[in-house]
Amino acid sequence: MDGQGKNSACHTFGVVGGDERQVYLARAIAADGCPVLTSCLEKAEGLPGPVPLETLCAQADVVVLPLPASRDGKTLYAPLAAGPVPLDEGFAAHFVGKRVLGGMAGPLLASAAGWGQVDFKDYYQREELLVGNAVLTAEGAIGAAIAGHPGSINGGRCLVTGFGRIGKALCVMLRGMGAQVDCAARKPRDLTAIKALGCGPVGYGGIGGGYRFIFNTVPHLVLAAPALSKQSRDCLLIELASAPGGIDLGAAGRLGLTVRQEPSLPGRASPQAAGELIKEAVCHILEEG
Amino acid sequence: MDGQGKNSACHTFGVVGGDERQVYLARAIAADGCPVLTSCLEKAEGLPGPVPLETLCAQADVVVLPLPASRDGKTLYAPLAAGPVPLDEGFAAHFVGKRVLGGMAGPLLASAAGWGQVDFKDYYQREELLVGNAVLTAEGAIGAAIAGHPGSINGGRCLVTGFGRIGKALCVMLRGMGAQVDCAARKPRDLTAIKALGCGPVGYGGIGGGYRFIFNTVPHLVLAAPALSKQSRDCLLIELASAPGGIDLGAAGRLGLTVRQEPSLPGRASPQAAGELIKEAVCHILEEG
Amino acid sequence: MDGQGKNSACHTFGVVGGDERQVYLARAIAADGCPVLTSCLEKAEGLPGPVPLETLCAQADVVVLPLPASRDGKTLYAPLAAGPVPLDEGFAAHFVGKRVLGGMAGPLLASAAGWGQVDFKDYYQREELLVGNAVLTAEGAIGAAIAGHPGSINGGRCLVTGFGRIGKALCVMLRGMGAQVDCAARKPRDLTAIKALGCGPVGYGGIGGGYRFIFNTVPHLVLAAPALSKQSRDCLLIELASAPGGIDLGAAGRLGLTVRQEPSLPGRASPQAAGELIKEAVCHILEEG
Amino acid sequence: MDGQGKNSACHTFGVVGGDERQVYLARAIAADGCPVLTSCLEKAEGLPGPVPLETLCAQADVVVLPLPASRDGKTLYAPLAAGPVPLDEGFAAHFVGKRVLGGMAGPLLASAAGWGQVDFKDYYQREELLVGNAVLTAEGAIGAAIAGHPGSINGGRCLVTGFGRIGKALCVMLRGMGAQVDCAARKPRDLTAIKALGCGPVGYGGIGGGYRFIFNTVPHLVLAAPALSKQSRDCLLIELASAPGGIDLGAAGRLGLTVRQEPSLPGRASPQAAGELIKEAVCHILEEG
Repeated sequence: MDGQGKNSACHTFGVVGGDERQVYLARAIAADGCPVLTSCLEKAEGLPGPVPLETLCAQADVVVLPLPASRDGKTLYAPLAAGPVPLDEGFAAHFVGKRVLGGMAGPLLASAAGWGQVDFKDYYQREELLVGNAVLTAEGAIGAAIAGHPGSINGGRCLVTGFGRIGKALCVMLRGMGAQVDCAARKPRDLTAIKALGCGPVGYGGIGGGYRFIFNTVPHLVLAAPALSKQSRDCLLIELASAPGGIDLGAAGRLGLTVRQEPSLPGRASPQAAGELIKEAVCHILEEG
Repeated sequence: MDGQGKNSACHTFGVVGGDERQVYLARAIAADGCPVLTSCLEKAEGLPGPVPLETLCAQADVVVLPLPASRDGKTLYAPLAAGPVPLDEGFAAHFVGKRVLGGMAGPLLASAAGWGQVDFKDYYQREELLVGNAVLTAEGAIGAAIAGHPGSINGGRCLVTGFGRIGKALCVMLRGMGAQVDCAARKPRDLTAIKALGCGPVGYGGIGGGYRFIFNTVPHLVLAAPALSKQSRDCLLIELASAPGGIDLGAAGRLGLTVRQEPSLPGRASPQAAGELIKEAVCHILEEG
Repeated sequence: MDGQGKNSACHTFGVVGGDERQVYLARAIAADGCPVLTSCLEKAEGLPGPVPLETLCAQADVVVLPLPASRDGKTLYAPLAAGPVPLDEGFAAHFVGKRVLGGMAGPLLASAAGWGQVDFKDYYQREELLVGNAVLTAEGAIGAAIAGHPGSINGGRCLVTGFGRIGKALCVMLRGMGAQVDCAARKPRDLTAIKALGCGPVGYGGIGGGYRFIFNTVPHLVLAAPALSKQSRDCLLIELASAPGGIDLGAAGRLGLTVRQEPSLPGRASPQAAGELIKEAVCHILEEG
Repeated sequence: MDGQGKNSACHTFGVVGGDERQVYLARAIAADGCPVLTSCLEKAEGLPGPVPLETLCAQADVVVLPLPASRDGKTLYAPLAAGPVPLDEGFAAHFVGKRVLGGMAGPLLASAAGWGQVDFKDYYQREELLVGNAVLTAEGAIGAAIAGHPGSINGGRCLVTGFGRIGKALCVMLRGMGAQVDCAARKPRDLTAIKALGCGPVGYGGIGGGYRFIFNTVPHLVLAAPALSKQSRDCLLIELASAPGGIDLGAAGRLGLTVRQEPSLPGRASPQAAGELIKEAVCHILEEG
């Protein structure tokens, strides 16, 4: 985790658009001793004055676009910019001849033919970023659970559905908080690994009742009426998966259960940590050439 | 922890005043199958209609007053009552001939001579309640840390000052969240126990820098300018101790450090869990006769 | 993990050869309510009398061979048999028409052409068995560390080299024992995951000194003279990887460091748990058809 | 834990009798840079040649006697001495005018009137030593459990009886190994604290069956026939308390249960760590004057 600035020190970085994560990303690059310019971040606090995109592109040889690069395929994801930043051929043309990195870049790359000329890498395909984001999601989910329930995690029974990156991190941390944790999964290897963590392995068909918290990490329906109807109204459900998610919201509503939607936790709850993870992924990509 | 309702089932309970904890206390008693009346809780939701204090005292043989019973020695602590409830001889006279339990009861007992005639016990002297409250405080503090910092607990360096009930619970839980935890204490036995938990033992004179979070649990100054000046501005300090607390607020302010005051966390962050802890303490007192 | 006997109950099992793991495997199958015969386990205690292989094959429709099925490709791995069991065409011929399962079966399958006619599956390719075995290896390694060093794991600095299945389990458990754990790995994703577990991520080139225990899980040289020479003579090294292992034994010897060879821990330290894991893997294979 | 040698550096130490712990104690004092002589340790390896007691007492101003100082009240506890060292007036007379420290010193001090003239402190009354020894006992017990059972701690159900220093350490470490841990205790405060650690609180009257391991830490009968008869023969009981211990050995024997007696684990399993703990306690006593 150390010395990542070394190789990167020969670059001048441009950080363009995005949310607080990009602000912390820019600060982390500067803290490594590299020159960094920012653009489309006019409303951000604590950054040396943003420059026009032309200026940035004239000086920077590496440009970091946000995560996601675009939500709609028409504008840059840039909630801290002075105004909307349209994705057109003119925008794409700025980046020819530079190394450009961005996250979840499909809609961006489809927005203009000019992107075909750009040396582009999607840092959100780096496994270390996905792992780190999953840990931040788990921590943010625990924060949401503490804030959202009048009871405690400690001493309570928790269910995690799914044993991917986020589910794993939740199992470890919830148990570390002193909860009794069950985790629902399908693969035998996962059930064995769940047990090895000191948690209770459960098949999706065998979900019982009495949970104080349920954390869903699966993006398709795994918590339908039969499982939901076994829970008491004190149970708080936290949806962490992307739409449509794993919780039958209609059934939950009819049963009087509370569901908190908590998408995109790293950016909202831990923008500094999330920005530093992006910085590390960017450095690894640059180091690998 | 089981079957505590058994002996208690022969009592009719009155729950008077207090905050959400008293509401959950009343619900927990009812869930044990005991008759329970409430008073001075008119604004609470989800309770069967509160009755006048006279009615309650006419029927209940055990009365539970809040924690604290009174903040000012002049009125009952009753933020959910329709109006202020003065502590006078008339108030005290209601309780003669009943078993009355309340928390931090000094100001209440000093408010009227009539309390000398009442069979009163302070449940806040029960060690199991103090231990349980410390755990809720630690969990609430972790919630405050997650909510209050753009970085993460996981992977971060944390300092806990003090190794009493709250400090111990924090060491265990923060480590369980994947932090690197140091704990400052004075007694050699505590330093040994800190190390045994896998945390780093530190004397108060040897506090270093580089912490992302500092949790103070000591009610007198232990974090003065020399220790504070070693921290970066990214460090979040959380004050958990009662006034005056352990952090030199003036020095922290001059150094640009952020201090969050987080007193009375169990009642604010976990009123259900806190109310159930009070119920358990009350049951233990009744069982012991 | 439950009800695995259900589908299996329609089978008659034959358990042939192997060590204590096979004995516990046979007991676990019987505890599930299935008929089970054993052969080539004459010296085992607590088993209903072993039968000749012919008898077993006449009755059983599923036969479980040991892990490994053979060490030398010439005889069955059968340390508890009355005598050596040669692997020849006659041996293979017994199993035609049956479902046969064995572990690390390469040498066995190469021993006779007849195996081409047998419906054979290698259960050691089941991920749940590999995961479970890794956990048993980690626990056995901790037992070896406690038994082999006059100091304690608790409060000590430990290094784990490698972050595969065994390395992961060691990181979690050693930290759970109250150690300060570093883990050396190469991939950025692993370094991130190591940090997320609250352990210290280290590159192989950056291994420092001062460890009380070093656990190697990498089967090729990762601990050479430069890293070894930084350790004190109080450091105990435990080699868990298969030959040639990751520790330069010559350098360790010259430096006066102690290296414990601890291969095949699950079978030696936890034969019951290991046998039950094999049983589960066998049941999963049968359930999948 | 740092710099303890500083104040101690002005002393010349004599280390007399005892087992391997005293050897490591002497080495730790020497590593702090203090002169140290040894006596009654002739059979120990790796020590600079022991000197006669007269020589030692002529030079040392602080003398550390073993833990225990004497088992029988007639001879020094000195299994590594060339021969028995009788406790008579002549022995006591050596120590007049010196600071002498020993552990569990009752029988020693009763052995000769001359001890009344000696400046003596019992270091085994230091809480930090008792806490540290409890942790070593817990770790040694886990080692005994791993070595003594063909199943695993990980994923298994464990019962700890008693929630004193050793019970607390066992709860934390066993859970850290991935076990499901119940702990039996009597006091409500302990049951609350057990739950807060993520373990299951149990009253002594409510001990159920199905444990893989039972660790007793209570020195009087708490595991009698009713509780023992609920366990399967796979259950391993480990007795850690001093005689008579908490397990009804007769009942256990009739039920076919295995009981391992594991007294005095720190000295046997972790003499280095135990010796260093004694050294720290001695230094604290000297620092306090």
